[in-house]
Amino acid sequence: MEDKVIKAIQDDYPEDFAHCYGCGRQNESGHHLRTGWDGEHTVTIFEPNPEHTALPGFVYGGVMASLIDCHGTGSASIALHRKNGHDVGDGAEPPRFVTASLHVDFLKPTPQGIPLKALGTVEEIHPKKWKVNTEVYAGETLCARGEVIAAVMPDTFLQKK
Amino acid sequence: MEDKVIKAIQDDYPEDFAHCYGCGRQNESGHHLRTGWDGEHTVTIFEPNPEHTALPGFVYGGVMASLIDCHGTGSASIALHRKNGHDVGDGAEPPRFVTASLHVDFLKPTPQGIPLKALGTVEEIHPKKWKVNTEVYAGETLCARGEVIAAVMPDTFLQKK
Repeated sequence: MEDKVIKAIQDDYPEDFAHCYGCGRQNESGHHLRTGWDGEHTVTIFEPNPEHTALPGFVYGGVMASLIDCHGTGSASIALHRKNGHDVGDGAEPPRFVTASLHVDFLKPTPQGIPLKALGTVEEIHPKKWKVNTEVYAGETLCARGEVIAAVMPDTFLQKK
Repeated sequence: MEDKVIKAIQDDYPEDFAHCYGCGRQNESGHHLRTGWDGEHTVTIFEPNPEHTALPGFVYGGVMASLIDCHGTGSASIALHRKNGHDVGDGAEPPRFVTASLHVDFLKPTPQGIPLKALGTVEEIHPKKWKVNTEVYAGETLCARGEVIAAVMPDTFLQKK
């Protein structure tokens, strides 16, 4: 398994969709989460900052939720992009997704100071609604399970800009 | 309804439990979420920073999840504290909770630039496990619904410190 995501769907997001605090390459303060393929799974690798603490030594749950959230929308985007006949970096604009719902089960305290790996399994519910089941590992330890229902972004989001 | 939480349970958390990125008063970089009573409901008020963006103009879902997460554990703590005969600020150490699971339904895009209000309804499942249902409002608009299952912190968390 790779320890770095080389080709990430977020690198291809259009400019006006690249400001997300979780995964926007244009958000200077954000987490810069990047999601790619790992065989038939999707993968996002992220090492939280020292300040992202719950108790000293353990990762904050809200940052785990953020990882699962953007990994979910990124996984839906990269999967629909593939279904549409595209690959990351081929110049086509990937579909935009928003999170309809997010669920996280915290299984074990997540240690700080090592990269976390989110592994996703993507399932199409219907063409505009995808489910992403995610497992987050710290080393070999499964620390959290997540489920994101991601929906193709409605036009109402852009109208308000 | 108040627009500020005067007496917050997080102000009473013991020193070694005050470093949470979401709600720790000792975490300089964190959100400093503070949870108090509003009648029979619990309330947390928080205005995300400008960088906490999903799309420009809208709040990032991971920050919404963070608000619901710490509001959930804070609500469980303040409710069990009351059940134990204590009030915020009476000098007694409140019970410590961790998040077992977190669920968020994103109902409407959440506008940036105004304070968000999380209102919680707390239910005891058993003495060490509490459920907190939360509604997050931006002004009069219900933007998200959340559910947290909070558990009294197991000793294993402190052993690893």
